[in-house]
Amino acid sequence: MKGKFITFEGCEGSGKSTQLRFLGEYLTQKGVDFVMTREPGGSEIAEDIRRIILNGRYTAMCDECEALLYAAARVQHLKEVVAPALESGKLVVCDRFVDSSFAYQGYARGLGERFISDINRFAIQNYSPDLTIFLDISPKAAFERKHGADSSDRMESLGLEFHEKVYEGYKKLEGKFPRFRPVYCGGSKFETAENIKNLLRAENIID
Amino acid sequence: MKGKFITFEGCEGSGKSTQLRFLGEYLTQKGVDFVMTREPGGSEIAEDIRRIILNGRYTAMCDECEALLYAAARVQHLKEVVAPALESGKLVVCDRFVDSSFAYQGYARGLGERFISDINRFAIQNYSPDLTIFLDISPKAAFERKHGADSSDRMESLGLEFHEKVYEGYKKLEGKFPRFRPVYCGGSKFETAENIKNLLRAENIID
Repeated sequence: MKGKFITFEGCEGSGKSTQLRFLGEYLTQKGVDFVMTREPGGSEIAEDIRRIILNGRYTAMCDECEALLYAAARVQHLKEVVAPALESGKLVVCDRFVDSSFAYQGYARGLGERFISDINRFAIQNYSPDLTIFLDISPKAAFERKHGADSSDRMESLGLEFHEKVYEGYKKLEGKFPRFRPVYCGGSKFETAENIKNLLRAENIID
Repeated sequence: MKGKFITFEGCEGSGKSTQLRFLGEYLTQKGVDFVMTREPGGSEIAEDIRRIILNGRYTAMCDECEALLYAAARVQHLKEVVAPALESGKLVVCDRFVDSSFAYQGYARGLGERFISDINRFAIQNYSPDLTIFLDISPKAAFERKHGADSSDRMESLGLEFHEKVYEGYKKLEGKFPRFRPVYCGGSKFETAENIKNLLRAENIID
């Protein structure tokens, strides 16, 4: 792998989209050769799978189906977008990756870590992130920020109790993977953006 | 499991649809309480996944994505349709099940048996078929029968060489699972229908 692979994780309302936009603007300004992408989705087939996963009408979707769809979208996106970019030496910044499956499906849905590991072993292959930035904010504070946002999304509309479990799931990853790094984001969005840039500099990912 | 679970397997052009129709007519005539369904699909969400799997435009779909989508559709259909019918004592007849994944994705695509077992363990749960009827005909003969059929289907349009591998994959299951029973279908469709009914009678599934 010639390029670096950075993933962003966080609960709904953690400000992930805003921070990704800020980072993209900064990388563009610095002339870095990067690809910004997202999960689930990021390629035509994976976006079509995303449409099924997030369809607010599909309340009958079982947890196992949801987890398998995320893994299917993941491997397709990895092979079509992430892997070619990394092999050509680009910096890849991805909104969500396998840690979302551990936190959402493995922990909050209760499918367990083993299930997620087994179905994702083939989806991740040898592509592990070099650094994962976890936007760390309590789900309650995040929910207050998101107030009034779109709730036709099947995952976003799951309610505070579910998202508190997701947060617990994420916190369990902190000790487990050294690459998984929390960034405090309870302050202003500009402070958070500085914290992220400082971390990327400390890891020699940006100058 | 109060009801019996019968699955049909076979290569493209093996006459599976015709035989399922004949069996459905026979069961209706005999007043059997049965559900006839199919994979991938059989429920709203699973049919939406099917549409992605079979989309002839999606030539970029990688093998791992394909296998994970089949498993996702399988577990959703199992929980929504197959399991409730079996629990209520019905006979369930399903066009394709996990053996298709072993033959198509595991063997012909080359993903291996371990991959298919791992991702399907959660999709099948404890629901194993009581009997699997494999419509046994050489892919070459099957292709001649199918001549002129719809080729906008991504799986059907894969060509003879691929389907010969699928057939080999199926043949490997004969020795492995006692429930997996080949039925010769090189004769007329009426002879094949009789062979199927004889097998179902011998297994005490129909009178």
